[in-house]
Amino acid sequence: MKYVYAFREGNRDQKYLLGGKGANLAEMTSLGLPVPPGFTITTDACKAYMAAGNKIPDGLMDEVATARAALEEEMGKRLGDEADPLLVSVRSGAAFSMPGMMDTVLNLGLNDTSVKGLAKQTGNERFAQDSYRRFIQMFGKVVLEVKGALFEDALHEAVSAKGAASDTGLSADDLAAVVETFKGIVQRETGAEFPQSPDDQLAAAIEAVFRSWNGKRAQEYRQLEKIPDDLGTAVNVQTMVFGNKGEDSGTGVAFTRDPATGESVPYGDFLTNAQGEDVVAGIRNTEPLGAMANHFPECHAQLTENMKVLENHYRDMCDIEFTIEQGKLYMLQTRVGKRTAAAALRMAAEMVEEGLIEPKEAVLRVQPAQLDQLLHPQFDPKADVAAIATGLKASPGAAVGAVYFTADDAEDHAQAGEKVILVRPETSPDDLHGMIAAEGILTSRGGLVSHAAVVARGMGKPAICGAEEIKIDLKGKQFKAGDALVKEGDIISISGTTGQIALGEVPVVTPEPTVHFTTILSYADQFRRLKVRTNADTPEDSARAREFGAEGIGLCRTEHMFLGEDRVAIVRRMILSDNPADEKAALDELEVLQKTDFVGILEAMDGLPVTVRLLDPPLHEFLPDTEELAIKQATDGLSAEEEALLRAARAWEEVNPMLGTRGCRLGVIKPGLYTMQVRALMEAAVERKQAGGDPRVEIMIPLVVSGPELELLTKWTREAAQAVIDESGVDVDYLVGTMIETPRAAIDAASIGRVAEFFSFGTNDLTQMTFGFSRDDVEGRIMTPYLEKKLIPANPFETLDQAGVGELVRWACEKGRGARENLKLGICGEHGGDPASVHFCHEVGLDYVSCSPFRVPLARLAAAHAALGAGGPGSTA
Amino acid sequence: MKYVYAFREGNRDQKYLLGGKGANLAEMTSLGLPVPPGFTITTDACKAYMAAGNKIPDGLMDEVATARAALEEEMGKRLGDEADPLLVSVRSGAAFSMPGMMDTVLNLGLNDTSVKGLAKQTGNERFAQDSYRRFIQMFGKVVLEVKGALFEDALHEAVSAKGAASDTGLSADDLAAVVETFKGIVQRETGAEFPQSPDDQLAAAIEAVFRSWNGKRAQEYRQLEKIPDDLGTAVNVQTMVFGNKGEDSGTGVAFTRDPATGESVPYGDFLTNAQGEDVVAGIRNTEPLGAMANHFPECHAQLTENMKVLENHYRDMCDIEFTIEQGKLYMLQTRVGKRTAAAALRMAAEMVEEGLIEPKEAVLRVQPAQLDQLLHPQFDPKADVAAIATGLKASPGAAVGAVYFTADDAEDHAQAGEKVILVRPETSPDDLHGMIAAEGILTSRGGLVSHAAVVARGMGKPAICGAEEIKIDLKGKQFKAGDALVKEGDIISISGTTGQIALGEVPVVTPEPTVHFTTILSYADQFRRLKVRTNADTPEDSARAREFGAEGIGLCRTEHMFLGEDRVAIVRRMILSDNPADEKAALDELEVLQKTDFVGILEAMDGLPVTVRLLDPPLHEFLPDTEELAIKQATDGLSAEEEALLRAARAWEEVNPMLGTRGCRLGVIKPGLYTMQVRALMEAAVERKQAGGDPRVEIMIPLVVSGPELELLTKWTREAAQAVIDESGVDVDYLVGTMIETPRAAIDAASIGRVAEFFSFGTNDLTQMTFGFSRDDVEGRIMTPYLEKKLIPANPFETLDQAGVGELVRWACEKGRGARENLKLGICGEHGGDPASVHFCHEVGLDYVSCSPFRVPLARLAAAHAALGAGGPGSTA
Repeated sequence: MKYVYAFREGNRDQKYLLGGKGANLAEMTSLGLPVPPGFTITTDACKAYMAAGNKIPDGLMDEVATARAALEEEMGKRLGDEADPLLVSVRSGAAFSMPGMMDTVLNLGLNDTSVKGLAKQTGNERFAQDSYRRFIQMFGKVVLEVKGALFEDALHEAVSAKGAASDTGLSADDLAAVVETFKGIVQRETGAEFPQSPDDQLAAAIEAVFRSWNGKRAQEYRQLEKIPDDLGTAVNVQTMVFGNKGEDSGTGVAFTRDPATGESVPYGDFLTNAQGEDVVAGIRNTEPLGAMANHFPECHAQLTENMKVLENHYRDMCDIEFTIEQGKLYMLQTRVGKRTAAAALRMAAEMVEEGLIEPKEAVLRVQPAQLDQLLHPQFDPKADVAAIATGLKASPGAAVGAVYFTADDAEDHAQAGEKVILVRPETSPDDLHGMIAAEGILTSRGGLVSHAAVVARGMGKPAICGAEEIKIDLKGKQFKAGDALVKEGDIISISGTTGQIALGEVPVVTPEPTVHFTTILSYADQFRRLKVRTNADTPEDSARAREFGAEGIGLCRTEHMFLGEDRVAIVRRMILSDNPADEKAALDELEVLQKTDFVGILEAMDGLPVTVRLLDPPLHEFLPDTEELAIKQATDGLSAEEEALLRAARAWEEVNPMLGTRGCRLGVIKPGLYTMQVRALMEAAVERKQAGGDPRVEIMIPLVVSGPELELLTKWTREAAQAVIDESGVDVDYLVGTMIETPRAAIDAASIGRVAEFFSFGTNDLTQMTFGFSRDDVEGRIMTPYLEKKLIPANPFETLDQAGVGELVRWACEKGRGARENLKLGICGEHGGDPASVHFCHEVGLDYVSCSPFRVPLARLAAAHAALGAGGPGSTA
Repeated sequence: MKYVYAFREGNRDQKYLLGGKGANLAEMTSLGLPVPPGFTITTDACKAYMAAGNKIPDGLMDEVATARAALEEEMGKRLGDEADPLLVSVRSGAAFSMPGMMDTVLNLGLNDTSVKGLAKQTGNERFAQDSYRRFIQMFGKVVLEVKGALFEDALHEAVSAKGAASDTGLSADDLAAVVETFKGIVQRETGAEFPQSPDDQLAAAIEAVFRSWNGKRAQEYRQLEKIPDDLGTAVNVQTMVFGNKGEDSGTGVAFTRDPATGESVPYGDFLTNAQGEDVVAGIRNTEPLGAMANHFPECHAQLTENMKVLENHYRDMCDIEFTIEQGKLYMLQTRVGKRTAAAALRMAAEMVEEGLIEPKEAVLRVQPAQLDQLLHPQFDPKADVAAIATGLKASPGAAVGAVYFTADDAEDHAQAGEKVILVRPETSPDDLHGMIAAEGILTSRGGLVSHAAVVARGMGKPAICGAEEIKIDLKGKQFKAGDALVKEGDIISISGTTGQIALGEVPVVTPEPTVHFTTILSYADQFRRLKVRTNADTPEDSARAREFGAEGIGLCRTEHMFLGEDRVAIVRRMILSDNPADEKAALDELEVLQKTDFVGILEAMDGLPVTVRLLDPPLHEFLPDTEELAIKQATDGLSAEEEALLRAARAWEEVNPMLGTRGCRLGVIKPGLYTMQVRALMEAAVERKQAGGDPRVEIMIPLVVSGPELELLTKWTREAAQAVIDESGVDVDYLVGTMIETPRAAIDAASIGRVAEFFSFGTNDLTQMTFGFSRDDVEGRIMTPYLEKKLIPANPFETLDQAGVGELVRWACEKGRGARENLKLGICGEHGGDPASVHFCHEVGLDYVSCSPFRVPLARLAAAHAALGAGGPGSTA
């Protein structure tokens, strides 16, 4: 196995072997760009080092010696030479960029002898001593693991002793003295002299870079970015060039296009007489790239030309580091540059126009998750946000408003024209009017699929959930977060995108979807196989989703329609009725209201399929809280109606409502309820058809566990539907299908598939039951420790759990299609808007995904990525 | 295909083809016993009839004509003959006995002509007319579907007109007139004359029998007895013989052994001058079989001989119907007789002693479910039980006692020497002391796996759960059931075997396990492959189970150990502690107590494996009810401690506790808890070992969802265990395994199997999550409609749901054993005591089942049945 590659031997496709930096240095070398020569030690060497229990693999140092000799030959200089020494940098470079996470050693090759050669060669004694001082400090800290503070303190001491303002005030002699002090520190801390042999320096530095792959920060970063732990890092050994050799030198960073806006103009920062880290550190004020033309017209022209070469070669925006050493330009690094979502869209769209890339590539250039930023207001990136607490990023977007602690208060103040933020421990359907009235929602409990989170995402409204740091005192109408006390009416700002909660008003910007957005999504639509529908319960949501490109409704929940104040009263009458006549009367009233709801939705989605789920939640959700009533009973006493409500609430109360009498179980024991809903829907369809519309009705029966169960409910459904058709004389086509949301339904999909015309995977509930995770209870309390301890690979409510839930979905698809070849398959859980999950849906052959309106563009793009074979699980692209 | 078999052509092995009755008639014919000749139309004919949409299959009536001709030839008589007519019966006869569920026509062949021949032949005009009258009535009702009441009313009218007491008061002429009236009814109701042609009569009767297979009653019966719907019935056409031809005739029923006790003496009932239905109807007082010797010494001797022939031939107790016509004995039917559980055991055991059968057969002769009757007190079968309500048969056995409505009251009165029945809406762990004190438990809510049911079965104590008819008024300390009002202290009797609740004291009998019981179970042990363990949480239960043959503990729940009044206080201190030191102090106290529990259990199960499940329930189960405290807070106010408890209870409260922070999730976020339990268990094992015992410890981690989760907990467990071993210097072997009770654990069994040393399927929870059925909520409310409407094949909490939950078990066994060849597999849900489920466990290759102590014998027998290939799902044997 070959462990070492000279830059001229590699190319950019070898990023897994040479790391991103090494591969790109090799590529630039091949392009004939002025890259300081060097060589790369492969990731294989790192892997071998780790596999052997941190032992340099046999043969590696021999190869390094050969490469080093060749480099010395090429440069005509030698490491440690007392006349004209070669200096090198030793840098990590993994397949994926991990900025600042791993170690670097500069100026390697300096020792007591070669420092003199450097002084001679540069004619700058101070520069030489300062370089040696920096080398010992960096090598000491990184390679020898001496505490960095020891060096820093010693340097400060020297500066103070001299009475200087900073280390620039130290002379060559002063620095020579510091070098001696530093060497003393090393001797004391490590029990050995600072290594003088370049061989030893190089070997130790390479090993330090290898070790840094498993440093704590690097591990954490990989976990966050989902970079596999076993890739290892390459090591780049490269001739040093210096941008700080005087006014004829300089350094800078450049982008071939503007990474913030995407505009096709070079963009960058430049500093005269400085080293790379000075640009990044922001200690000195940089100049814009254009200004470089004044100081270094030739270098500027050369750089501009090089940037064109690189962009044309990489066919993408490149991010470049360069240095000018004594009037000569060197290209130190390049890679495909990071960019904002807006810039990604603009570059991708414009590069297609320019003929640089194909639409397919343009689609792949934009990450689906980035789109989320573009559709919601955000904290102004320029604003300084001092967060008093953070919570879960439950629904993206930013909002500013006055705090209120009850839905009623929120609604009252909103109606009075105030912008409000609803703050609750958690929300329930009773809080819906307050959520509608609020600009944003903040809860101290509940997870990413808690009621607040799901409803807020559905409304496209910012929400932070599970912000456990805030302690709400409902009685006192205030909350505390650390030292901050926020009272009713106080203004706060929240960002559901970042999870930040801040006092007062943080400026908010609302990005407008651009022409580039539209272009890229229209390209995406050319490639995707999956249809994208939306989860929408109102005509407004439906219309919005359609604007975002939704191709129908995958889940229209009917329970929200029961929750208006007028409606809940009727629902309660229905529940309380002790005879069929009263029940029927209440259902008849509801039927009229439901019909209106459906007409609006069918109109908004005219010509597109609308999947309506029959009532799903347990009845007690429509009843008041028993504890509140019981307390009132014990204190003020209850009215007769309240007594009845309490009795009903107790009767319908459940120990585990998630696993209780809900969904089609209600349909079985209260058949009138479903019949009413089916009638209302079919009557709405008839009305739409009579008005010249094209209603496409799909009736979905929730929470099924067996074939016979679905068979009975389908029979009842068809009878009710047929009755409306017969009464009206208008024929309406419709499908009857089911949600697959219990594990049993998935397992028994063959039997259910013989009855259902479509399956829609309700992956929220399916995840809850498969894991035995109640989203209300578990997300706040155990998800964090479970993710931290890596007990589960990801939050299964965000990203579909492929090894568990996914197996059930796969199995159900297979068995369902086995039973009915043309079975329509879709997904309507929250996962329909998650890129990795969309990829899975594509892979198992679903027909469509359905997600909240604001996620529709994201799903369209993710579906295209999936069809193009990108963005799959485990992908870090 | 041959549709018709003469009796002499068939044999007893053809019950699927000829029906049970037909096959046995054929067998008796072959044995040379005096069977009235006839032939059988096969079930294939019936199936063909049904498949063709109720159409007589081609060729059938030709075969019938041939068989009829042969029969007429053999008997020397012809159907419809005016001199000496042949009469036949036409009876259904399915593969499985469906007594009274299908139709029969007697005296077929009579018409206006042959009735004269019958009169002539018998010299009894009245008999002839009566036979004709009966035939028209039966044929009219069964075949022609004329309302039976029309005939009955007409007959009553004739009797009244005559001024007679009953139809026996009618003369031959009167009956002839009734015949005319009946024919008129038929003419009026069917628009056609009563069929005179024996051909037509026979064809119509055969078709009627075919149709009766799908009669409502027959369908319901099959559903109840789990007889497949597609078997069809055979039809037996047999020469009529008459036991009512005078004092030289008679009829009876005989068993070759006593079906109640199993004693090896003939047993039966006999009537002179009567027909079979008179014996069954119980209108006349029958004589015992012995008395028959006085009237018919020759026939009696012949019958006794025939019984010996049959028993030796069938090698089992036979149930026989016979008739004596004018001094001649005819054998009308035989089959293997039904028997009580006690009789089944005795016969089986004694037949082995007699050399009649092998032990293997003896084992198969006793149904596992029958054993339940033998281990619990029962209502005296002779007692007249007037139930005021019934509920779910939650735990078998009968109990009598005074009603108390709180666990404290029950305990107080029990301690004062009273026998008490604890009556609660439902029970919780707080009621445990009351349940221990009570003779039996009655709840108005909760299903077969509610707390009350599970705990009662574990204690072997009678319980009725979910008796929704009883309305409990806890405040008033009384309950109502219909009109009955039962107050505190009133005596009631309950039977968990029958579900009956009765006022006052119903006499109770306690069967003693006999020597036969022991014999049969020891035979069973020779054949079974599955081990049988028990679910036991105390030394007492462990010892009892061991007496019943348990081979270890499959599930020792540790939560019950936390519920003594002294202990719950410590547990609460642990939960309330706000610093590690307080938590540790509380855990240390618990450790001492737990160790004592474990020592007792390990001692009782010395030398046998003891699987201890680490704490499973959510913490709020150890905290008081929030509502009660909230009410007290609003009224009387709370003490500081109560305030703290309320806060904790609210903090740990969960929306869906079943899917919440319980099981190993607690283990992850409160590691001290599990460490304490592991230490206590290992310290107990060390103590046992030091005392010369042989403790076999298996530590079980509950509610796992992934491999990494189990890996972490196993690591912690092993560290804690090793610490005890190191401290004591005593080496104790132990296994660490897990429960498979979430669907995800089953699906991901490969990854979990790499860590676990054993799997124990927790099929209660697995069923809850797979169906999304909370046992607390769903069993009472939807199980009944679901079973009635056949939406699910059986209550999945009683019998393992093979199509759903079973698939997961099967998959997990396969994947688990794939990951670890010697993985130990067991089941510890309630299903371990259900025969069909035990069969499934055998089939999928589990190593053991575990069930409550009282079900251990049943499981041993069921395991033997499974190993012998009997008693499986769908079996109706």
